[in-house]
Parts: sequence; C-alpha cells; structure tokens
Amino acid sequence: MTTSLGDRDATTEWVLTLSCPDRPGIVHAVAGVLADHDGNITESQQFGDPASGLFFMRVQVEARAGRAELEAALSPVTEQFGMTWELDVVGRRLRTLVLVSKAPHCLVDLLYRERYQDMPVDVVGVVGNHADLADMAAFYGKPFHHVPVTAATKAAAEDRLRDLVAELDVELVVLARYMQILSDGLCRDLQGRVINIHHSFLPSFKGARPYAQAHDRGVKLIGATSHYVTGDLDEGPIIEQDVERVDHSRAVADLVALGEDVERRTLARAVRWHAEHRVLLDGHRTVVFR
Amino acid sequence: MTTSLGDRDATTEWVLTLSCPDRPGIVHAVAGVLADHDGNITESQQFGDPASGLFFMRVQVEARAGRAELEAALSPVTEQFGMTWELDVVGRRLRTLVLVSKAPHCLVDLLYRERYQDMPVDVVGVVGNHADLADMAAFYGKPFHHVPVTAATKAAAEDRLRDLVAELDVELVVLARYMQILSDGLCRDLQGRVINIHHSFLPSFKGARPYAQAHDRGVKLIGATSHYVTGDLDEGPIIEQDVERVDHSRAVADLVALGEDVERRTLARAVRWHAEHRVLLDGHRTVVFR
Amino acid sequence: MTTSLGDRDATTEWVLTLSCPDRPGIVHAVAGVLADHDGNITESQQFGDPASGLFFMRVQVEARAGRAELEAALSPVTEQFGMTWELDVVGRRLRTLVLVSKAPHCLVDLLYRERYQDMPVDVVGVVGNHADLADMAAFYGKPFHHVPVTAATKAAAEDRLRDLVAELDVELVVLARYMQILSDGLCRDLQGRVINIHHSFLPSFKGARPYAQAHDRGVKLIGATSHYVTGDLDEGPIIEQDVERVDHSRAVADLVALGEDVERRTLARAVRWHAEHRVLLDGHRTVVFR
Amino acid sequence: MTTSLGDRDATTEWVLTLSCPDRPGIVHAVAGVLADHDGNITESQQFGDPASGLFFMRVQVEARAGRAELEAALSPVTEQFGMTWELDVVGRRLRTLVLVSKAPHCLVDLLYRERYQDMPVDVVGVVGNHADLADMAAFYGKPFHHVPVTAATKAAAEDRLRDLVAELDVELVVLARYMQILSDGLCRDLQGRVINIHHSFLPSFKGARPYAQAHDRGVKLIGATSHYVTGDLDEGPIIEQDVERVDHSRAVADLVALGEDVERRTLARAVRWHAEHRVLLDGHRTVVFR
Repeated sequence: MTTSLGDRDATTEWVLTLSCPDRPGIVHAVAGVLADHDGNITESQQFGDPASGLFFMRVQVEARAGRAELEAALSPVTEQFGMTWELDVVGRRLRTLVLVSKAPHCLVDLLYRERYQDMPVDVVGVVGNHADLADMAAFYGKPFHHVPVTAATKAAAEDRLRDLVAELDVELVVLARYMQILSDGLCRDLQGRVINIHHSFLPSFKGARPYAQAHDRGVKLIGATSHYVTGDLDEGPIIEQDVERVDHSRAVADLVALGEDVERRTLARAVRWHAEHRVLLDGHRTVVFR
Repeated sequence: MTTSLGDRDATTEWVLTLSCPDRPGIVHAVAGVLADHDGNITESQQFGDPASGLFFMRVQVEARAGRAELEAALSPVTEQFGMTWELDVVGRRLRTLVLVSKAPHCLVDLLYRERYQDMPVDVVGVVGNHADLADMAAFYGKPFHHVPVTAATKAAAEDRLRDLVAELDVELVVLARYMQILSDGLCRDLQGRVINIHHSFLPSFKGARPYAQAHDRGVKLIGATSHYVTGDLDEGPIIEQDVERVDHSRAVADLVALGEDVERRTLARAVRWHAEHRVLLDGHRTVVFR
Repeated sequence: MTTSLGDRDATTEWVLTLSCPDRPGIVHAVAGVLADHDGNITESQQFGDPASGLFFMRVQVEARAGRAELEAALSPVTEQFGMTWELDVVGRRLRTLVLVSKAPHCLVDLLYRERYQDMPVDVVGVVGNHADLADMAAFYGKPFHHVPVTAATKAAAEDRLRDLVAELDVELVVLARYMQILSDGLCRDLQGRVINIHHSFLPSFKGARPYAQAHDRGVKLIGATSHYVTGDLDEGPIIEQDVERVDHSRAVADLVALGEDVERRTLARAVRWHAEHRVLLDGHRTVVFR
Repeated sequence: MTTSLGDRDATTEWVLTLSCPDRPGIVHAVAGVLADHDGNITESQQFGDPASGLFFMRVQVEARAGRAELEAALSPVTEQFGMTWELDVVGRRLRTLVLVSKAPHCLVDLLYRERYQDMPVDVVGVVGNHADLADMAAFYGKPFHHVPVTAATKAAAEDRLRDLVAELDVELVVLARYMQILSDGLCRDLQGRVINIHHSFLPSFKGARPYAQAHDRGVKLIGATSHYVTGDLDEGPIIEQDVERVDHSRAVADLVALGEDVERRTLARAVRWHAEHRVLLDGHRTVVFR
C-alpha cells in the first residue's frame, strides 16, 4: 500500500491520523514536528474520550517534506506516546473493491460519485454473486467478476475474494447490498477495511427483511446504518446512520424503494469519510472528524 | 364526554372520523349524509389498508346541523358499513391529565402549547409521583396532585389515578416522562386514551437507560417514540417518531439533554394529532391523517 | 395523449384529479359516479383553499369501467361544478423529454429511477445543448439529441425543441440542470408541463451562481427548489424544496457538490409527484397530495 | 468582564479561542504554552479559511494554572501572531439580558434551558417594550423591566437599555422576538454581543411579515435564522439556521405557529454556541466549532 504520490519536492497536502492513550503534550509534540518542517496546518480536529481514555487527532498539513522525511520525523513522537497512526496524501484514491448482488442502487451511486464527484476511491473491480449488474460496471469501465455462491461453493468463493483483494492490492471492500455473509475468518483478516450498509436503523430490525419488520411494527421513520464489518453480524462499529419519514400509506415495497435512497446516501457518506481518513476506531465505537 | 358545543343553530365545523371493512360506496354514503345537511367539506382524507382490509376516513365539514341531527342522520350509514366512528367539534379541547415524575421538559412544553399555541387540550390536572414540578403546574394554573408510588402503595396510587380520571372526566392521559409502569389492568381500562413518550427510537433500546445503551452502541442518531400505551410495555401502536443527530463527542449526559428536545417535540405532535382526531387505530399500527 | 391502457373489461385502477370553485356537494357527486360503477376508492384526499376559494380532489379508484364509460359518467358532474379535471390510469408512464447541459447528477438520477424504481415516466429522449451526457443516455437506451444553442441559433434550437415535443408526443419536459433560458413563448405554450430544478432555496439567491452567493453570505443550510416553469424566471409555482446542512469549512466547490445531492432528490420527488398526478395548480401555488 | 472563577490552585477547564492571519507554527506555539503548564487538551478544533487568509482555533484544556499565569504565558504568542483571543472558564455563565415584546416562545425556551438544561447563561434581566411577559420572567425569578417604545420615547428607551447593560454588567443581549429596531449607534456599540432571531430563512423574506410572504410564494419549507446584529438590518453574520416542512394546507397562522418551534430551537442553539465560545467571526461570516 505504498504510493509515490507526494514523495516529491513541491508542496504536498498530507493528512495525519492518530490515536493513543490520552495525556498532556500530544498536540504540542505533533505540531512541533510539523512546524519543524514548515508545515502549514489547514484543518485539524482533536478529541479525548473520557470513557476509553484515548486521544484522537486528524490533521491536514501542507509541507514540502516527502513521506520518508515526515515519517522519520514523526517516529520518535509516535513511539513516545504509543500511537497508532497513518500518514497519507490528501485526495489519494483508495483502491476499492465493491461487492454486490442484484440491487443496483448503492453500486450506481458509488460509481457515479467516483466519476463525477471526486470521491477519493478508485474502484478496481466489482464482484457480484449474481451477474445482473455486470452492464452497470462495464458502463463505468470497471472489471466485473461473477463469483456465484452456493452452500457447496462458499469456501471457494471466499478464496476467490481473498485472491482478488491480494491481486488488486485492495485497501477497502464495500458491501453494496451484497447479500452473502462473510465468514468470521475473512472478517477478521480484513478487519477495519470492510464497510457494509445495513438496511435498517440498527439496532432495530437486525437480520432478514427489516423493511417487512418495520412495516409490521408501524414505524414512522425508516433508516439505514453503515458500519465496519466484524465477525459479529450487524454489530460492527457504526460510521453513519440516516432516516427517512414514512407514513401509514406505505406498503413494504414502498419502504424498500424509499429505503434505497437512505441506504445509498448513508453508504456514500461512510465510504467518503473512510477514504478521507476521517473515521478512527475507538473500541467498538467510531470517532468521525467531519 | 358530552358537550353542548356545536349544538346550536349557527354554522359549526365538525370533524368526523371512522373506520370499517373496506368496500365500495363508503365515501359516497358518508358524503351523501353531509350533502343532505348542506355540509361543506373543508378537509378530508381517506385510506384503505390492503393489509388489514380496513378503510379509514377523516372529514372536516361546516354545517348548520347540530350534533343530535347529524348523529341521527349518520347512524343508518354507520350501521350499514359496520363503522367505528366519532363526531366532534373542530378545536374542542380534550380534557387531559398529565402524569410526570421529575423531568420537566415534556410538561413545560405541553403547558406552553396549551396556553400559547392553541393545542386543543384542556389540562385539568397534573399528577406527579414526585413533587418537583408542582411549581410549574401552579404557574400555569393547574391543580397538582402529588401521588407518591412505592411498592407498598402502588395499588392505592393506581386507585387514586382511576378516581382522578373519573372525577375530572378525563379523556386523555399523557405520560410526560412518568417513570412508573402502569398495571396491565389500568392500561386495558384506558386503552387508546393513554399516550406515552419513550426516550428511544423504538424498537431500539427498549427498557431502562436507553441513552446509555445508545452511547455504548455508538449510534449517530438518537430518537424518541410517542405511542399509545397497551399492557405490552414499549409495544403499543406508534403515533410519531423523530431523531436528532449526535456524534462521538457526546457523553451520555449530552445525549439525555439533546434527547429532551426530541422527546418533547415528538410527544407534542402526538398529543396534538390525537386531540385533533387525526390518529386512527389500524390493529397495532396507526393511521395518521396529518 | 390517449392510451388504450385501462380500456378493457378487467379491473383498472384509475386516478381522478380535479379542481373547481368550492361549494357543498362536490365529494358526494363525484363519489356517487364512482359508486354507480362499483368503484372501490383506495386512496383519496381533498382540500379546500380558503384563500383562493378553490376545492381540490385526488382519488384513486378500482373499477371495471373503461375510460369512455367513466368519462361519460363524470361529464355532467364536472360541468355542473365547473371542474378542471383529468382521468388517468395509475402507474401509466408519462412521456418525458429531459433537457440537460453538462452536469450529470439529475439526469443520472432520473434514468436510474425510471429503470430501477418504477418512477412512472417514459423518458422518450434526452436533449443536450452540449454532447457530454450522450454516453449516459446511450447506456440507458435513450435517444440523445444534440441541440447546441448560441445567440445566433437560439430561435432555431427552440424550433427543434418544439418539433421534438410534437414528434415524440411529449407530456412532460424536465429541465435537469439545463443551463439555457426558455423563451417566454415556449414557456407559455408548455405551461404546466415543464419542471425545473433551481440550485437554491428560492426565493433566496435567484439568478446566477447561487452557491457562490450562499457561500459569501455564510448560510448554514443550502437548498434546492423544483418548480413549474413560467415566463417569469425563478418564479413559477413551487412543487418541492429541500435543504442540506453546511458549515464554515465548506468552499464554494463543496457547496456545489453537496448541492447536487439536494438538487437531484428534490427534482426526483417533484417529477414523481407530477407523474403520479399528485400536483394540482392553485394560482401560483401548488397543492401536493402526497 | 473579569471573573475570579478558575483563579485557584485546583484543576480548571479553560477554553481558549483565537483568530489570526494564517501561517505555519500557530498550533505548535499555542500547544507549547499549554504543555508548559501541564495542560491536558480535551477538545480542540482549528480551521484555516483560504478565502479570508485567517486561522481560527478553539481549545479546551485542563490545567492547574490560574488565569493570570496563563494569560501572561500566552501573551508573547498572541503578540507574535497578531491574535484576537479570549480565555474563559468552561461552563462560566454569560451575563445575559433578554429583550422581548409580546411573543413568549423564545423567552420561555431560554429560561427553561438556563434552569433545566445547563445552558451557560445567567439571565440577569428581561426587558419588554410590552408588559405581557412579566409573569413569565417572574416565575423564573428574573427582574422584568418594562421599557415602552414610541417614536417619541425611542431615544430615551435606548438610553435605558444602555444603562441596564452597564449596570448589570451584561455580556450578551438576546433579541428574543423583540419587535423594535435598535439604532445604528447601539448596534455598533454592542457589536458581536447582540444575537437576534429572524423569523425567516434569510436571505429569503427579509423585512416585515415573512410568514405571509412565504405563504404567498407557496414555499414548502419555512425557516429561521439566528445572527449577530449589525447596523445593517437582517444582514449580520449568520450563526445558525433551521427549517420545518410545510404544505399547501397551512394557513399563515399555521406557519407562524410552526415557525415558533423553528425560531426557538434555532435561537437556543445560537445562544448556547455563543456562550460556549464556539462562534468566531470571520468577516461577515461565522466559524462555528460545534
């Protein structure tokens, strides 16, 4: 996951994210390194979580220094404070694999935003357990991989996914209404790199057919939740949620159609924030520096 | 629950609500009765629920006819179609009893809206199992009844509630963050006449301390639900729901404070719509003609 | 604009919309005709506007009667009350022409919704004064007409538009971020059949570059307005408006990108409601029976 | 505007806000001072505005240092960078004067939030050009000053306001639907310390009777704007805006009632953010660190 982008002499805008146990002096130490390299901070946010005792920071900085130079300068500080950290170039596109089944709304939206709205992802492939969306992928110039999944082929299908992730140097996997459940092993291996959209306002209506459940319960708002995938289905850290108002006159099919709008915009925000390094993990919660 | 209001010769604006098994001719039959009395329909909504097979109607009509005359004219139609129905004068204030504990936000809002915003309720009393809000009730000129509840006195306290409902001719009971659970018997006796505000987006986070649960789960929206009370706690028909956006920086106490705003506006809408005869029961769902 | 759809013996679901001066008996008269044909009303809304003195009604009804039979039966009533009215089959797709320039977001969204979400439009062609979106139209199988507009060719371009409207039997024209101003004459001729999306919360920021104006003013919400086009630019009857929250950190380009989401969903709602016959004109205001 | 609060040996949580021309090293310099005093940063946000070339910072820090010590330590840095800055104790209540006329909704909400929701204001008095709200002020234990305004007495009334501001050591003046226009001179003298609520989504519907204007234009959303008052009426820097959905069935009186809810919550947010030192001026725009 290296990039030569930014490793040059001209000014580059860097984004640094970090977390560590909270104690005095963190901001000063980090800002000191940046100041030593004539870095100009353009945007910065910090947060100390009293519950977890962790401190989180995201800073965008313009500097002439290259990656190697900055990393070397930051290393002592990150070691001193026990930081988990990442340095990237602002706007670099994350190599992304999108998994789909038959429903087109999330895929359409992601590909549209990549092409037309500068969402910093580079969709390097689309995987479908059905072939319905192959033409959509083709229109946007994306390789489509048809990987059917049955009880008998599930293990082989996951191997194929692992191969694609490796071959394509994938940094992010997006489950864009992919209707298969990933195995625990795969979830663990890709921890923090898989984003799902759940068609409900979690923790309401977990599991199957949430819109039918919502209709039956007579709710007045339907929602969607985008979250990181962990082995614990529907329980990964939540990145974003949104809702849409409905009323008694809506049948289940109407809820599904209205829900598609909430799902696609909720997923699109989560993917964008992740790709912009705005989402940090705080145990099973997320810190989102919007 | 009789009223002489509208029983006069001048024009009155009536509101008629009804439900019955769906079949052709209902609207024509009802509109025929109204037309026969030179009624001028000013607002009307109908809905047929394919799931339950029931038809719902709410109509506001200006007419010179009095209650007795209208009821007599409507009776054959309501019998023919097997209707559940109600006729009231638009704007008549519903005799309302508000139950509270210590949290003031819902009570403050209801009393403010009654006095200043023409919400069609007449709060005939406030009952508190604590005395904290007695001064607030007094400021708005409302009798305050302190009815403490302990395990030992719970039955007696409910008797006191029943007495108050009877003595004060109460049509609607509002649980304005009343932290006691009503017995099944009382719920049944007051079925359809008790509105609760639950400090969560049901069916998420049922039961106790929902904001602590929401914080622990790291949700990005918190919500509130106003519903009719049935014996099945937190499961009565939902009238209205709303949400507020939160982020990682919010502690549980912040969620509680932000939640108060959602709770009071959600409850206020539910009470207003009920008092305006806009809420009809469709099994354990509601039809809300806004 | 005739259709044989529904002119058959089996049950058809009809949608009838009408407006007329308000007086007693309208609903009864209309419902009577429908009852005479064993029509089963599935959804109905009425509204009397005290300001304009007009009455509006939209009713969906299942009936075995064909168009000719229903129209003949309704005629005496519509004449008696001086009604403007329209009868259509529920779900019939409106023949629609979409006009675009370079911005793709609204076109992408409309074509997606037509294909995948059952929005009842049949986009019979896409006209662009630039050719940028020809490939998008082609992907969705839509004929693309490149009609460049310069000061010299404006009149000829409008003639081409008129021809297309006539040849393609167009019922609705959607200006999907079409950056040319239609002449007064064309606006008049297509009155009530042209829907525009304005990239601002009208009446704020009329005219050019509204996002730059909004940024300069430091607003905290940006919005979009979908309205019928009249000769009076930015002043036609409003169908739908929506907003998105922004903050100080957003540059003009960010507002534009965020605005695209508001624009496309606002336009999509307006087009859907129009195509479902939910929008009635009340002077320069609209009645929207959602 | 001095306070002894926090001038003690135990740990105090301070909030520091500053703005200055943007250049490298600001964060490092400020964080260095805080680190030198063992300050623990609990919350911090920075923003560099490319349009104005200004840098803004808000930092909350726990420290044992007192005010004098911190101010002395910060002075060299603030001079070096040409900073406008302010240091306060987190949660200190701002001495606030509320001006009202007859409408109660904003006053009720502010007093409720002060008493029950820990909004960090200390309402030291309520001024009304009418006496209608004297009882409300009294209930919350606030001195009410009846200062009628006519053409003849306007100058004297403003003198009375100036006296009250001086005598009561007022830091913030809130125009809570105060229907008199302050003179240019008073606006200038209190610049940055007066917050108004305008009953419209500015810049739509400036001036009088905005809800009647909104109804006439047939808008689908109504809004409110809270802004700092400058001599240029309805044109001061915007702090917060919000909207509420309306439809065709709403008369002007309904818009007014619905608008009251938007107004009070919009004003409450603006006052809270101001009192928490979250609002910084960036020319005629605001930076709001929420």
